[in-house]
Amino acid sequence: MVAFRVFPATVDGQDHRRGGANRGDGQMLQEIDLNADLGEGFGPWAIGDDAAMLGIVSSANLACGGHAGDPEVMFASLRLAAERGVVVGAHPGYADREGFGRRVIPMTPDEIARMVAAQVGALQGVAALAGVPVRYVKAHGALANLAADRAEVAAAIAGAVRTLPGRLALLAISGTELEVEGRKAGLEVVAEVFADRAYRADGRLVPRGQAGAVLHDPDKVAARLVRFAETGQMPVLGGGEVALAARSVCVHGDTPGAVALARGLRDRLEAAGLAIRPFAGA
Amino acid sequence: MVAFRVFPATVDGQDHRRGGANRGDGQMLQEIDLNADLGEGFGPWAIGDDAAMLGIVSSANLACGGHAGDPEVMFASLRLAAERGVVVGAHPGYADREGFGRRVIPMTPDEIARMVAAQVGALQGVAALAGVPVRYVKAHGALANLAADRAEVAAAIAGAVRTLPGRLALLAISGTELEVEGRKAGLEVVAEVFADRAYRADGRLVPRGQAGAVLHDPDKVAARLVRFAETGQMPVLGGGEVALAARSVCVHGDTPGAVALARGLRDRLEAAGLAIRPFAGA
Amino acid sequence: MVAFRVFPATVDGQDHRRGGANRGDGQMLQEIDLNADLGEGFGPWAIGDDAAMLGIVSSANLACGGHAGDPEVMFASLRLAAERGVVVGAHPGYADREGFGRRVIPMTPDEIARMVAAQVGALQGVAALAGVPVRYVKAHGALANLAADRAEVAAAIAGAVRTLPGRLALLAISGTELEVEGRKAGLEVVAEVFADRAYRADGRLVPRGQAGAVLHDPDKVAARLVRFAETGQMPVLGGGEVALAARSVCVHGDTPGAVALARGLRDRLEAAGLAIRPFAGA
Amino acid sequence: MVAFRVFPATVDGQDHRRGGANRGDGQMLQEIDLNADLGEGFGPWAIGDDAAMLGIVSSANLACGGHAGDPEVMFASLRLAAERGVVVGAHPGYADREGFGRRVIPMTPDEIARMVAAQVGALQGVAALAGVPVRYVKAHGALANLAADRAEVAAAIAGAVRTLPGRLALLAISGTELEVEGRKAGLEVVAEVFADRAYRADGRLVPRGQAGAVLHDPDKVAARLVRFAETGQMPVLGGGEVALAARSVCVHGDTPGAVALARGLRDRLEAAGLAIRPFAGA
Repeated sequence: MVAFRVFPATVDGQDHRRGGANRGDGQMLQEIDLNADLGEGFGPWAIGDDAAMLGIVSSANLACGGHAGDPEVMFASLRLAAERGVVVGAHPGYADREGFGRRVIPMTPDEIARMVAAQVGALQGVAALAGVPVRYVKAHGALANLAADRAEVAAAIAGAVRTLPGRLALLAISGTELEVEGRKAGLEVVAEVFADRAYRADGRLVPRGQAGAVLHDPDKVAARLVRFAETGQMPVLGGGEVALAARSVCVHGDTPGAVALARGLRDRLEAAGLAIRPFAGA
Repeated sequence: MVAFRVFPATVDGQDHRRGGANRGDGQMLQEIDLNADLGEGFGPWAIGDDAAMLGIVSSANLACGGHAGDPEVMFASLRLAAERGVVVGAHPGYADREGFGRRVIPMTPDEIARMVAAQVGALQGVAALAGVPVRYVKAHGALANLAADRAEVAAAIAGAVRTLPGRLALLAISGTELEVEGRKAGLEVVAEVFADRAYRADGRLVPRGQAGAVLHDPDKVAARLVRFAETGQMPVLGGGEVALAARSVCVHGDTPGAVALARGLRDRLEAAGLAIRPFAGA
Repeated sequence: MVAFRVFPATVDGQDHRRGGANRGDGQMLQEIDLNADLGEGFGPWAIGDDAAMLGIVSSANLACGGHAGDPEVMFASLRLAAERGVVVGAHPGYADREGFGRRVIPMTPDEIARMVAAQVGALQGVAALAGVPVRYVKAHGALANLAADRAEVAAAIAGAVRTLPGRLALLAISGTELEVEGRKAGLEVVAEVFADRAYRADGRLVPRGQAGAVLHDPDKVAARLVRFAETGQMPVLGGGEVALAARSVCVHGDTPGAVALARGLRDRLEAAGLAIRPFAGA
Repeated sequence: MVAFRVFPATVDGQDHRRGGANRGDGQMLQEIDLNADLGEGFGPWAIGDDAAMLGIVSSANLACGGHAGDPEVMFASLRLAAERGVVVGAHPGYADREGFGRRVIPMTPDEIARMVAAQVGALQGVAALAGVPVRYVKAHGALANLAADRAEVAAAIAGAVRTLPGRLALLAISGTELEVEGRKAGLEVVAEVFADRAYRADGRLVPRGQAGAVLHDPDKVAARLVRFAETGQMPVLGGGEVALAARSVCVHGDTPGAVALARGLRDRLEAAGLAIRPFAGA
């Protein structure tokens, strides 16, 4: 069986920018979390095959009525996730349905904090009705990208999460300002890597739209994740590797072939001896 | 000084339909709550003079982003209410901004419960950020009217409130199904009467649009409330009286002259020896 | 080859309630229109397979930003319809995306007229940019159902359509108040029957939710439409027939198997010698 | 009586960047247009005193359901404007009610064109029902600011306006890319200056938020406009003057004291011998 190391991140050193190790002790990991953005329907509309994805992932990031989702979608998604034993997180985004939260809406950090609080609160309200706990928060789309780069936005989000009830963890992209600010705020921060996105030498994602930014070959996707789990090294687009720390892997559920890709990835990770387990609430 | 009696309501008898006494012990009341619907702006738009009303009422029913309100409006209203020592409740309504929650949107009771949970949760989220507790829930507009008459809608709202965190009280119109179902659900239910609305012999409000439904004379409004506080009897449109029980009085903040009317009412109630105090959170 | 009769409708007689014959001369029809509700996406969301349906139908009812649709969806749908030689109509509905226009929103007839004018105008604006003419209007969902039964709502819609530029025709369910009021208003009114919906003896649709309301067998659907085209008689649920007049057949594009059903229907109608042609703009 | 000169603008020369003369012949003007953004309510909410402003201005820029407005507001505003003899234009903006169209929403020029077409079309639809012609288009808020600076955005808006029916004029801020692109597209372009906004030496507005950007003294506001009308020179913040050409003056209706300021300006302009007349539709 393969053993997986997590690399320690120093909170005060430069290294934490591409850190994100959560156990922080260099111990071998035997398990990893798979997360996906789900519950992204609205009214009569659906995106992706949530039922299938909930049979694959261990954590579900549920839309909160901002970029997607409404009380009906939230309730049904919460219940379905709980039935499948999948842990639930809140997935707030810009309240821009037409843009699906993928456009930056000009807002101050304070405005962002209030929007995040309202959205996570809305999901928590429906979750209380559904009897399903919300364990963590993960920012969506353009909001996540902005929080990756801008410390004041990251701090606003982290601050909102800290004030909300339920001792919510923060799921952040490995090596981002959000990861740093989340730790500064005293939150439990779990870092994630992307299954199908290429990385740069600085540990950040190659922007969508750039050639090679998205990987489509299931075998390659799985192979590099297995290797990452073994070595902590992620291949860099153009050659070389970068050290990353993460306890969760984000898979997509809303593209053609997404379910098959995610299923194939899970199977390969399990075949390599890695257990798929939620990072929170276990 | 005048003393005010609260009339006992029996939960299982017919009387509870027009009951709502909260202390339920027939003791004299020395105080009463004044509540108003506030925080009903949206984006660039405002309604009423919230700052003035918060100097008059003891409880503020804050819109939750459904019929009105957004994270900015919620946050500012929560903070302003707290600064003025006014207790805050959530005021969910149909998610119909163009109709301001005054139109019945066809929904099942389950859908209503999920909508209420999402809206109250949203306000609770922003309230956590603002550091201001939310103490109770009061349904708005067409939703409140439907919940007054239909037990299954009332039960759905009461059920949602019961599952939400924060041990929320329910502020219900005196003598309604919502009052009954709230008590059945084990909630703390506080009944309210309307300062400027005429009553029928069955203890229910004369519908808006009917002649005489709304009172405009501040002296008359105050006089009948003082008498109600003393005797538990409310004048009936067309003559006679009806016994009601209530610990809160709803005043309006969004009509011309509303602030002056509310201020005059408070002054007269205080002159009659009645203290204005929030029913919750004291 | 089969010939198809259209039965004359008298505008002033009782017969026009279940009439809708457009040529009104008892001549044989050699052609019929197939229409479908399309362009019902919103932002990132889509419903149905518009591209496939546009290869089958001759008229496309495009959502106008009310129950569905936005400027991007409208523009793309207009262009795609034009490329395929499909005639375009406006498909206004209650501005209730969460309910997909299937809930009655309480509105006065005047409010409905203004809403319809705004929505059809919006589609006409985008259509001007796309260089594609809008030829007709068909009400959607709950609005269509209300306009079928209530003359004042039907008159409001017909009045709005009459004032709009472009000499728009009105596509109305056969035998409804909307058909009557459209003719009274001097509009070109084309009646439609539903391919997959059962009829009552009074010529109206069996309400959804009632057993047998929706037909699923492609052969049966086609057979009764061919027979209707030949005889003007539509089978009634429970036995017997009712005389209807129509020049268009509504097929659905948003249910599982919808495309195959519509394709099978078109093939069978053509095999029976009936040409599929748009009723407008030819 | 004072006579007012309009300075010729050359379409192909550098001068047209701060041009905008519409008669373009250097003749004396005896009249000027006053325009204001009106109809900016939504549902239950209103902004400003439209009834009062419609007694002052000659042209009303009406919101189209994007940043503000809905079919009810549009209809009422159209009717009221027509009753007062005020000419109506469409005032499209980003479809961002919470931001009131004052935030730049990331969109491509094509997306902007489609949004503008849909919004202007919606107003035209309601206007057809109201029997009131729409004469021109003026961009709102952040959209207007972007179109002032970026030629591709300006060209997209101008292109949309050109394809819409009704031979719509374009009301553009003097000296902007929108003015240039509107002329290139063959539209009738009318330039406007702002009554209460300070100018820079390049003929552009001092951005809001900068000290001195907004003028509050009615006498100063009127005096510089009278002088501008006489000489074509507008004072520059910090000293000096800049030559501008304009046939319309934008006054605000939504700030405290706005009505009094606008009324005072109109009185002073008329006292100086200038007639207030709409630029379009006379």
